[in-house]
Amino acid sequence: MNQLARFSFPTAIHFGPGARKGAGEHLASQGLKRPLLVTDRGVAALPLHAELMSLLKEAGLEATSFSGVFGNPVATQVDAGIASYHKHGADSIIGVGGGAALDVAKAIALMVDHPGHLFDYEDEKPGARPIDRDVPYWIALPTTSGTGSEVGRSAVVSDDTTHVKKIIFSPRLLARAVFADPELTLGLPAAVTAATGMDALTHCVEAYLAKGFHPICDGIALEGLRLAARSLATAVQRPTDIAARSDMMMSSMMGAIAFQKGLGVTHSCAHALGTVADMHHGLANGVMIDYALAHNVAWCGERFAALAQAVNLTDTTGQAFLAYLRVLKATTGIARDLTAAGIARDKLDQLVDVAIEDACHQNNPVPCSRDDFRSIFTEAFG
Amino acid sequence: MNQLARFSFPTAIHFGPGARKGAGEHLASQGLKRPLLVTDRGVAALPLHAELMSLLKEAGLEATSFSGVFGNPVATQVDAGIASYHKHGADSIIGVGGGAALDVAKAIALMVDHPGHLFDYEDEKPGARPIDRDVPYWIALPTTSGTGSEVGRSAVVSDDTTHVKKIIFSPRLLARAVFADPELTLGLPAAVTAATGMDALTHCVEAYLAKGFHPICDGIALEGLRLAARSLATAVQRPTDIAARSDMMMSSMMGAIAFQKGLGVTHSCAHALGTVADMHHGLANGVMIDYALAHNVAWCGERFAALAQAVNLTDTTGQAFLAYLRVLKATTGIARDLTAAGIARDKLDQLVDVAIEDACHQNNPVPCSRDDFRSIFTEAFG
Repeated sequence: MNQLARFSFPTAIHFGPGARKGAGEHLASQGLKRPLLVTDRGVAALPLHAELMSLLKEAGLEATSFSGVFGNPVATQVDAGIASYHKHGADSIIGVGGGAALDVAKAIALMVDHPGHLFDYEDEKPGARPIDRDVPYWIALPTTSGTGSEVGRSAVVSDDTTHVKKIIFSPRLLARAVFADPELTLGLPAAVTAATGMDALTHCVEAYLAKGFHPICDGIALEGLRLAARSLATAVQRPTDIAARSDMMMSSMMGAIAFQKGLGVTHSCAHALGTVADMHHGLANGVMIDYALAHNVAWCGERFAALAQAVNLTDTTGQAFLAYLRVLKATTGIARDLTAAGIARDKLDQLVDVAIEDACHQNNPVPCSRDDFRSIFTEAFG
Repeated sequence: MNQLARFSFPTAIHFGPGARKGAGEHLASQGLKRPLLVTDRGVAALPLHAELMSLLKEAGLEATSFSGVFGNPVATQVDAGIASYHKHGADSIIGVGGGAALDVAKAIALMVDHPGHLFDYEDEKPGARPIDRDVPYWIALPTTSGTGSEVGRSAVVSDDTTHVKKIIFSPRLLARAVFADPELTLGLPAAVTAATGMDALTHCVEAYLAKGFHPICDGIALEGLRLAARSLATAVQRPTDIAARSDMMMSSMMGAIAFQKGLGVTHSCAHALGTVADMHHGLANGVMIDYALAHNVAWCGERFAALAQAVNLTDTTGQAFLAYLRVLKATTGIARDLTAAGIARDKLDQLVDVAIEDACHQNNPVPCSRDDFRSIFTEAFG
């Protein structure tokens, strides 16, 4: 603990079943009148969309909807959203959806008053333009429990042509308020619940293990893990269990708040699987977590005691925690290894190449070399 | 978990040995030029005061100092501070000290642009004026590790004549940034370290036990308790141990962040001891905690398992946690009971009368009646 650390958790979170109903009134209380609702094609087709538009109208707001988000969001989707914002004469944004829609909402908010092109603001790009102006008031209503984008400071948007993912980062991109309503997740299919839930759980575990002195993040991560451990399997098996859905939505936000501390080796593996095999990020975390963390157990097993306590194990060794994760994967229907997940073994070299270049493992509690990644992926092919 | 919950942790915390050195530059980077440093008589007499003034000057700031805070702060101290602010043509405030100086800094910030008298803004008073304007940019540099006032939203200031404590509360009173430098606590005497440290620990414990669904607070509280458990005795016994001082300063902030969830029966007892016997608040918490929590153990012992784990007990029963607290009190020199603390037994009725009216126990996990308070205090007299 020799460096200075900086902490801040500025998002106001309104949490609980029915929380969505407060969104319109909240915007109105801020003097806002003309929100642009940003969402994806899937949400736009649900009764939820009509309900939200109706709630906004009841709150006296003139809202319009932009539902041009789909797949991994690309820059032209953001451009279309900005055009909708201006055409409507909007004064605020409501992001509704999973990580993709919320990231596009952030990118639209950024570009309403900042000059140039979205990718001029790419994080850590030499010569990047500064994000130096306030963005329009925006609020987030998550419809999945995984990325925690609703409490995050970054937007990931891909280039339309190259499909390369660009990260835009600034504390100014934080939602001003989150209306986290677990009722919005009751309809998620089991496979999506499992994959997104493993994303949340992995955020909690890797944030806790990440190096650095951030006890506030550590505490949030451990408690987020506790919630995921008690409710992920239930949410998968009994999709309408509101208590389990509530725990998972909270765990997802806690994981994302905590990972301002950093992540680790599992995430570098998952990012490689996203790039090389277009694998769902949460699923990739879920498949890889026990293989990747085995690397950490070998080097710093003693750090696993608190994780093991949080998931209610009597045996608080790192190996016991890995065994717990394997059971959780089986229970929630996550593929046990990369082969079972349908990834071809001949991708190994590519996976190693991408993983070693990924930034996440810089915060892993112990170093992970190219050879280490090769071992991890080799094990993970089964 | 039927109600909606609201969470927000907006203070930026700059933490670590030497953090104080960033305060001037931070203010300058905000375009501020003329801070008023608000502190107490004790701090004003320390070399720290001269060092801070010199650091501010180096950062290009024209600072002046108001050091009229002493004892339990009263309204005329705030009035004098407001006069200093205007006389200096100040544009910002730097609070330096323990809870008293930081509370006065908040009260001065409030009254710079709000009309009327400070007590017009008393929390929950019928007809209270609204705190509806932004207050001047203010930053906090805590010099004790206990109240956590540097991350809190309230100021406690007493009436000069009646000595009745008035609470002023608003999220607008939050410091915009905290420079939490454990080096500022290296000179605290053992008794002050113990009493303030027990205050921090009690915040963590009672916030965790408080009713309501606030897992972010729960996680922060448990981790704050873990830090206090590993470092309070060391900070008392080896005052210059910077690692222990760092843990305690962080634990103190974590306790105060977490107690937005609520506190409990220990705090109602401590408030009674403050009112009736002018006992130091942290010391009162420290003396009372095992007697007050015994009431909770009797009713909800199972909630103590996580607390016991956080302080590294193998036996995770509530009784084991109470036994741990008794040992900690002995180790840190906290009086074992009220008689040892010099409180006369004939205060019993008064203590019960004040405690039952105190608001804190409304958030206790189980109800605490007048008879329960009588039993708790009777036990606590030994």
